[in-house]
Amino acid sequence: MGNKDVKVVSFWVSPFVKRVEWALKLKGVDYEYIEEDIYNKSPLLLELNSVTKKVPVLVHNHKPIVESFIILEYIDETWNQYPLLPHHPHERALARFWANFAERKLLDIAWVAMCSSGNEQEKAVNIAREAMEKIEEEIKGKKFFGGEYIGFLDIALGWISYWLPVFEEVGSMQIIDSSKHSATIAWMNNFLSHPVIKESLPPRDKTLAYFHTRRKALLSTFQGFFKD
Amino acid sequence: MGNKDVKVVSFWVSPFVKRVEWALKLKGVDYEYIEEDIYNKSPLLLELNSVTKKVPVLVHNHKPIVESFIILEYIDETWNQYPLLPHHPHERALARFWANFAERKLLDIAWVAMCSSGNEQEKAVNIAREAMEKIEEEIKGKKFFGGEYIGFLDIALGWISYWLPVFEEVGSMQIIDSSKHSATIAWMNNFLSHPVIKESLPPRDKTLAYFHTRRKALLSTFQGFFKD
Repeated sequence: MGNKDVKVVSFWVSPFVKRVEWALKLKGVDYEYIEEDIYNKSPLLLELNSVTKKVPVLVHNHKPIVESFIILEYIDETWNQYPLLPHHPHERALARFWANFAERKLLDIAWVAMCSSGNEQEKAVNIAREAMEKIEEEIKGKKFFGGEYIGFLDIALGWISYWLPVFEEVGSMQIIDSSKHSATIAWMNNFLSHPVIKESLPPRDKTLAYFHTRRKALLSTFQGFFKD
Repeated sequence: MGNKDVKVVSFWVSPFVKRVEWALKLKGVDYEYIEEDIYNKSPLLLELNSVTKKVPVLVHNHKPIVESFIILEYIDETWNQYPLLPHHPHERALARFWANFAERKLLDIAWVAMCSSGNEQEKAVNIAREAMEKIEEEIKGKKFFGGEYIGFLDIALGWISYWLPVFEEVGSMQIIDSSKHSATIAWMNNFLSHPVIKESLPPRDKTLAYFHTRRKALLSTFQGFFKD
């Protein structure tokens, strides 16, 4: 399904942008990919997202939509094929809850862990591991969080399959534990084997190099992040 | 419309809980109010929300739903009368965006400002004022964010009308500026005049006393919150 009116303002290694691309690809919606230099932001980005100035921006019929989870909701409401959120309100609420939970307790915290060291990193790793336990409980017995197919929550947590192992390597730390998180690891493999996902990932060596650079730049930022 | 299967686990002075009550009242859904002691959490709360252990919890047909914005989406999907979110996906995305924006850049930050002093408080107040500018732009020319009626975004930002002035008084600070935020102030009055809102607010003297106590208890917590 072609659509010249769909654009995604992107950054090649961003897991947030990837969510938007995955959702559009799963729904078969063509889009124009616009690479943004997030370290030297373009007038286009500043115009489209003057408030947070961040990617991804989805532009549909010349109107911008920002923030990856909000964009996913928009995509699901706009293109009905291949529904992303479950049908029932209670299941929808659960998908949104776990998406938000993992964002705050795993993604944000794994980022702090990657960009810190010593005591600070240890605290972050412990919080991230606790979050992994909860996620492991949720995925047990399922192929995908969405059931038989990749859904909203798979897309929201998809970064765990590819970016989290990179964060672990860059930060010389371990959050995923093969003895404890076997259901999550099985899900990671299912997710990464899906053709839409497999073909959309940034090269691992470049991804590693990028996050090594980020770690170096940010290493002092999270000093004292956790209060005693 | 009576419904014995709707319960709200609440805390009398919580602006988060109030969102849920406002949404149910606007839709005419009866519910059972269950007051929770959040400083000595009940087995009921720990069972219903074992992950974040926070109020509000909406219980519908014996199933718990947590986090106020997620509960609002659930309520809007479950009871169709008096729609809260706009109809069009782009307007829905905007409502969600501004709700999230105000939560992070105004509510969280005003809380830091109230619970800090000196340089720390000054920084927080400046961030909160910037957020107020954006909100002022959004409400200009409208009676409510939802148009002629209170909608999702009015409910999400409703705390600004009653709790923010309390935070200002408790923190001896000024975030709302009558010379700059006249549209917001007009909206605050419209919101507070609505019968559903007016009748549901906690007494101001008790609310003030409660947040004075919170400020004292938390005053050291946000020291160094903003990195230089």
